[in-house]
Amino acid sequence: MRVTVWNEFIHERNNKTVEAIYPRGIHATLAAQLGERLPEAEIGTATLQEAEHGLPAAVLDATDVLLWWGHLAHHKVADEVVERVYQRVMQGMGLLVLHSAHLSKIFTRLMGTTCNLRWREADDRELVWTVNPGHAIARGVSQPIEIPAHEMYGEYFDIPQPDELVFISSFSGGEVFRSGCCFKRGKGRIFYFSPGHETYPVYEQSAVCDVLANAVGWVYQPRVSPIETGESPNVAVDWWR
Amino acid sequence: MRVTVWNEFIHERNNKTVEAIYPRGIHATLAAQLGERLPEAEIGTATLQEAEHGLPAAVLDATDVLLWWGHLAHHKVADEVVERVYQRVMQGMGLLVLHSAHLSKIFTRLMGTTCNLRWREADDRELVWTVNPGHAIARGVSQPIEIPAHEMYGEYFDIPQPDELVFISSFSGGEVFRSGCCFKRGKGRIFYFSPGHETYPVYEQSAVCDVLANAVGWVYQPRVSPIETGESPNVAVDWWR
Amino acid sequence: MRVTVWNEFIHERNNKTVEAIYPRGIHATLAAQLGERLPEAEIGTATLQEAEHGLPAAVLDATDVLLWWGHLAHHKVADEVVERVYQRVMQGMGLLVLHSAHLSKIFTRLMGTTCNLRWREADDRELVWTVNPGHAIARGVSQPIEIPAHEMYGEYFDIPQPDELVFISSFSGGEVFRSGCCFKRGKGRIFYFSPGHETYPVYEQSAVCDVLANAVGWVYQPRVSPIETGESPNVAVDWWR
Amino acid sequence: MRVTVWNEFIHERNNKTVEAIYPRGIHATLAAQLGERLPEAEIGTATLQEAEHGLPAAVLDATDVLLWWGHLAHHKVADEVVERVYQRVMQGMGLLVLHSAHLSKIFTRLMGTTCNLRWREADDRELVWTVNPGHAIARGVSQPIEIPAHEMYGEYFDIPQPDELVFISSFSGGEVFRSGCCFKRGKGRIFYFSPGHETYPVYEQSAVCDVLANAVGWVYQPRVSPIETGESPNVAVDWWR
Repeated sequence: MRVTVWNEFIHERNNKTVEAIYPRGIHATLAAQLGERLPEAEIGTATLQEAEHGLPAAVLDATDVLLWWGHLAHHKVADEVVERVYQRVMQGMGLLVLHSAHLSKIFTRLMGTTCNLRWREADDRELVWTVNPGHAIARGVSQPIEIPAHEMYGEYFDIPQPDELVFISSFSGGEVFRSGCCFKRGKGRIFYFSPGHETYPVYEQSAVCDVLANAVGWVYQPRVSPIETGESPNVAVDWWR
Repeated sequence: MRVTVWNEFIHERNNKTVEAIYPRGIHATLAAQLGERLPEAEIGTATLQEAEHGLPAAVLDATDVLLWWGHLAHHKVADEVVERVYQRVMQGMGLLVLHSAHLSKIFTRLMGTTCNLRWREADDRELVWTVNPGHAIARGVSQPIEIPAHEMYGEYFDIPQPDELVFISSFSGGEVFRSGCCFKRGKGRIFYFSPGHETYPVYEQSAVCDVLANAVGWVYQPRVSPIETGESPNVAVDWWR
Repeated sequence: MRVTVWNEFIHERNNKTVEAIYPRGIHATLAAQLGERLPEAEIGTATLQEAEHGLPAAVLDATDVLLWWGHLAHHKVADEVVERVYQRVMQGMGLLVLHSAHLSKIFTRLMGTTCNLRWREADDRELVWTVNPGHAIARGVSQPIEIPAHEMYGEYFDIPQPDELVFISSFSGGEVFRSGCCFKRGKGRIFYFSPGHETYPVYEQSAVCDVLANAVGWVYQPRVSPIETGESPNVAVDWWR
Repeated sequence: MRVTVWNEFIHERNNKTVEAIYPRGIHATLAAQLGERLPEAEIGTATLQEAEHGLPAAVLDATDVLLWWGHLAHHKVADEVVERVYQRVMQGMGLLVLHSAHLSKIFTRLMGTTCNLRWREADDRELVWTVNPGHAIARGVSQPIEIPAHEMYGEYFDIPQPDELVFISSFSGGEVFRSGCCFKRGKGRIFYFSPGHETYPVYEQSAVCDVLANAVGWVYQPRVSPIETGESPNVAVDWWR
């Protein structure tokens, strides 16, 4: 299993608070956390600043699961790279979309909706509840996961009804949020997981990283369906023989 | 549209608090609230104490939408009556399951799961959030609906994934709950709505009753599909001609 | 209820076979069929050739339900018009996507997938089977609907899993197709219905048009949720009061 | 992974045709086919005729995945055994329901619907099409799977909308059927797969058995969620700490 962690990597260099939490970048922390939990995986990283944002075709072709963290610079991600990621998802690559990446180009394109939500930065306590205990992403997860202080993300979250809803969060202010959502698009699997605001050490929490590792396992497909999906062919009778 | 409101009608006669809120019974209040909002509907009531619990075949045959409120006496509802209600749902009658009726015989039979949940009577504030604004039951509903004090119902709520999830609630204690859930079973439609604990005047809240009226409208089918579903027939080739 | 039927209106002017079936255009036939079944609706038409394709803001603002038939000229539909239609769907307008419009800009954008499929023009018999008899679109529909000769559309159809699957078709060649699919996106409802190839008189079949009328009724929302979805607002605690 | 294949084992002893295909019983063939494909699994069998139908508590407690084939004798399965299987599914055991077991006590209880369908024994050719190529059960499955002659099972199949629909079949007579359906109930996963009529050598087809092996893998959960679901506890504030 080959995993690539993508991060826009801006907050960590511009903001002392964030730098203190993630001195080498959110991507480095995520890669380390996943590495501990998925010893068999090859884990690489890529950032906005690299050539082709670190996602040339050769890298994506060798990626089974892509994590995506972005916030300030969604509009700076080149459409060509977004298209490349999109095509890989259609062909079966797994995609893990994190926190503020709900407004990333790749996520909104895959969802077909605005993906808007309500938010507040006020140190709300977030509790993450499991509503699908038979799902692979909930495996071994005690409920609730408590995030002592976090940005609030609240409904209405303008996404399609998830194919499977795994987690719902509450916040001190009383809001709720569908915080763990599974989608299948094309031959690919997508998991959106909302915890991970940059000014809180969320990706240092063990339970959060356990969910991320489970999610990598779920979006990953060791062998993809052989069905061709890339065009609309004109077929004869008994074409499959 | 012919609506029947069923209530076990025990708390209101045994508990002064409940009697003060619903002097003529929860069923009478619900019938009155729906009557104001659905002037074209014929609305009747039925209770556990009546012969056949007020639901003989003649009544059910003339019922398009059945509301069900029960708590203490699920086990006292005769299996024969449950079977009759079940058959009507299979044939297209709408069913609105309220609050503690999550453990009623009819609901657990239709769901096929335990329908267990966590609960607490501690005057939690409940906020009911819309997560499906394109659904008919969310029509005109501002979010959130605030119930100043209510019994807490929390996840994990052991139901099948709803066909459509309309509302999610939060509680002061931090719990969340899938409080408005749509299911289709057989030719019938079912809506589970959790607000309505007997010791709080929840069914006197206008916004709650607006949801109930919307829900009656959604589970109601003016004309049911003609497809036969009551048996597994052996059919010839071109049987439909 | 205000309905607008959009048609690219090319085949009918370039192909004698199609002209013979739909002398005034598919849009005119659809408008007439719906008019018979929905006497209370105001029904208008619009075509590719008109200014702004007949869909200026004033027309869309006054449209509750839009039907879309296109095939040869998806790429000629101006992005600005597609954006306008998209925004209206997000705000609650109903959209009925017909046959070859599975590859239209508006449908692929809303789905987030390629929407590819397999096809064959060989006079296959199509049978349309109901798999959701409690759905409003299946109301009164006998199964199967038999289309004596039609273009084959076959799986895999690259769409997200429909929120509700209403019809599945079979074809003489043995293929199957999810021919009636419901989606909710933003506050809008979308129904994709595959029957309607231009060289066969499909929209002259009564049972097909009954489905279309049911579908217009289902995607139509007389009153849309008041919840704001157009942005991601920063909200204070208790912002809703 | 511990797999138990349950079979009523009647046809094979009463019918020469069936005996010729499955001389040691359908259960033995299934166990052998799965054994070839899942070398790490421990595979046992159980039949109706054994004490407690071969499913005493000790066997079920040591079963991660149960396959169920039944037809003539659904009513002879003891309610006590059905209850035991049901409780294990609620707690996370996987269940694979095969062909005519759509009317078994365990399946209809889990579904909450009649599970009726249409059928015909007339050597129809069945084609099994994939409609969910990103699903683990479709892994490596070419489409369509062709079953040269089989009993026809047709819609309307009276089940809840599957959580995930993986396969749809067509038959020579023109019928369609949702032949591969995923459900989650409680903490357990259920897959219904319709191929497998006793008078045809369906479980000797490699592609069919590949699907069964994939399905065993999908319903299997190596580690189940720790969330308690067996009761409705009264909980204090901050009960989870």
